[in-house]
Amino acid sequence: MSQQGKRPLNVLQKAINKEVSVRLKMDLEYRGRMSNVDPYMNVILVDATEYSGGNPSANYGKVVIRGNNVLFVKISSNFQI
Amino acid sequence: MSQQGKRPLNVLQKAINKEVSVRLKMDLEYRGRMSNVDPYMNVILVDATEYSGGNPSANYGKVVIRGNNVLFVKISSNFQI
Amino acid sequence: MSQQGKRPLNVLQKAINKEVSVRLKMDLEYRGRMSNVDPYMNVILVDATEYSGGNPSANYGKVVIRGNNVLFVKISSNFQI
Amino acid sequence: MSQQGKRPLNVLQKAINKEVSVRLKMDLEYRGRMSNVDPYMNVILVDATEYSGGNPSANYGKVVIRGNNVLFVKISSNFQI
Amino acid sequence: MSQQGKRPLNVLQKAINKEVSVRLKMDLEYRGRMSNVDPYMNVILVDATEYSGGNPSANYGKVVIRGNNVLFVKISSNFQI
Amino acid sequence: MSQQGKRPLNVLQKAINKEVSVRLKMDLEYRGRMSNVDPYMNVILVDATEYSGGNPSANYGKVVIRGNNVLFVKISSNFQI
Amino acid sequence: MSQQGKRPLNVLQKAINKEVSVRLKMDLEYRGRMSNVDPYMNVILVDATEYSGGNPSANYGKVVIRGNNVLFVKISSNFQI
Repeated sequence: MSQQGKRPLNVLQKAINKEVSVRLKMDLEYRGRMSNVDPYMNVILVDATEYSGGNPSANYGKVVIRGNNVLFVKISSNFQI
Repeated sequence: MSQQGKRPLNVLQKAINKEVSVRLKMDLEYRGRMSNVDPYMNVILVDATEYSGGNPSANYGKVVIRGNNVLFVKISSNFQI
Repeated sequence: MSQQGKRPLNVLQKAINKEVSVRLKMDLEYRGRMSNVDPYMNVILVDATEYSGGNPSANYGKVVIRGNNVLFVKISSNFQI
Repeated sequence: MSQQGKRPLNVLQKAINKEVSVRLKMDLEYRGRMSNVDPYMNVILVDATEYSGGNPSANYGKVVIRGNNVLFVKISSNFQI
Repeated sequence: MSQQGKRPLNVLQKAINKEVSVRLKMDLEYRGRMSNVDPYMNVILVDATEYSGGNPSANYGKVVIRGNNVLFVKISSNFQI
Repeated sequence: MSQQGKRPLNVLQKAINKEVSVRLKMDLEYRGRMSNVDPYMNVILVDATEYSGGNPSANYGKVVIRGNNVLFVKISSNFQI
Repeated sequence: MSQQGKRPLNVLQKAINKEVSVRLKMDLEYRGRMSNVDPYMNVILVDATEYSGGNPSANYGKVVIRGNNVLFVKISSNFQI
């Protein structure tokens, strides 16, 4: 616990190919495998599901999310990171 | 799955001439062929259809979408990418 | 279709003197002849009509629209581009 | 019509000392003589009238409007430009 | 009238120590003596009164207003400028 | 009164260790001792009280406020500045 | 009290591995251990709990919060800093 952690953008890089949940500003959430992310937090999700108001509302293969509207990226604790 | 994916902006470049769906901040969505995109995510769609609240609301030939209002770009899994 | 298209800002430059429709963030739309545009998407419209909620609400000779509030610029398919 | 027009910021510079109407994001509009403008679209209006919801709501001598909240500047066709 | 006016930020500099009214985005207005202003439109008001919805709602000695939320600065015509 | 005042960011620096009130965009206000501030208006408050809608809603020891959401910083006239 | 405090971003760095509460713009709050933070205020929280409208609404292992939506970071006075 006294050890210094990794920088936020490095943590995101290390989560590539993990399952993540990306929350956008308008109460939209996207869950899927993060196939890549850049320092601006532009994210590529594959096998993605959209959640609107907490309910799944759409599925699609690949989505490129623009970083400036990202509130946060959750990395599931069910996956080894 | 352990292989590193492509960077987000490269994925968009590779989707040029594919059918995409571009979601903007105000619950507006535009579907059409992405004839080009730049690193700022300014997008040109041709043969575009506007969806407002999920319903098609307008058709037009060519639209230039300003990148800073883009939430995300979906790339249909029905197309080879 | 396999040919690379033009970059978004070049497409706008080529639409100078064409009829366009410029949509702003607040459900405002301006139609007229685009007498010029710069890389920031600042646009000059002449013989412009304002549409608010889909209905024409005002006419005026010349308007300079600030680029950062532009959602998109539609270029009518009725014009050769 | 095939002639290239002037760049947007130059058009604004040429409208100095003309009557203009400046629309801001919050449905506020200011009409008056534009005594100056800079490339950021910061505008000085003199003998200005504020319109809120389309009705005149206040008069004042001189106002400096910050460019980043400007939606557009209308230049009246009643004036030679 | 054919004379070129002063640039917007210079006009603000010249209004230092005058009574001004600063309008912010959230229908808040602050009136007082502008003891200083910088190019970002950060403003210092002294002997300031807050107006909310047009009514005075608070008084305080000194307030530093962050420029990016300023809509405009009115300079009263009752003062020589 | 003809003397030039201090620049806004300098005034904030001089108010370090004074009691201030920091207003954020969402009708939130924080009062406490400003233990530091940087040029971006990131502020550290200690012994801080949160006011929401004008009423105290929470107390806490130390809060780091991000500058870009600051509307203004009031400096109480009860303190020598 | 006359001693100069630490700069805001340094205070955040010193709070690494402490329990913090991060408030975002949309009335969302995240509490957990801040395993890292960068100068843009991108924050990593671990063992995080989401509070929406004041009530806990979700738990998750690790979340990367994008700095530009952070209103403030509270550092609990129950922890030595």
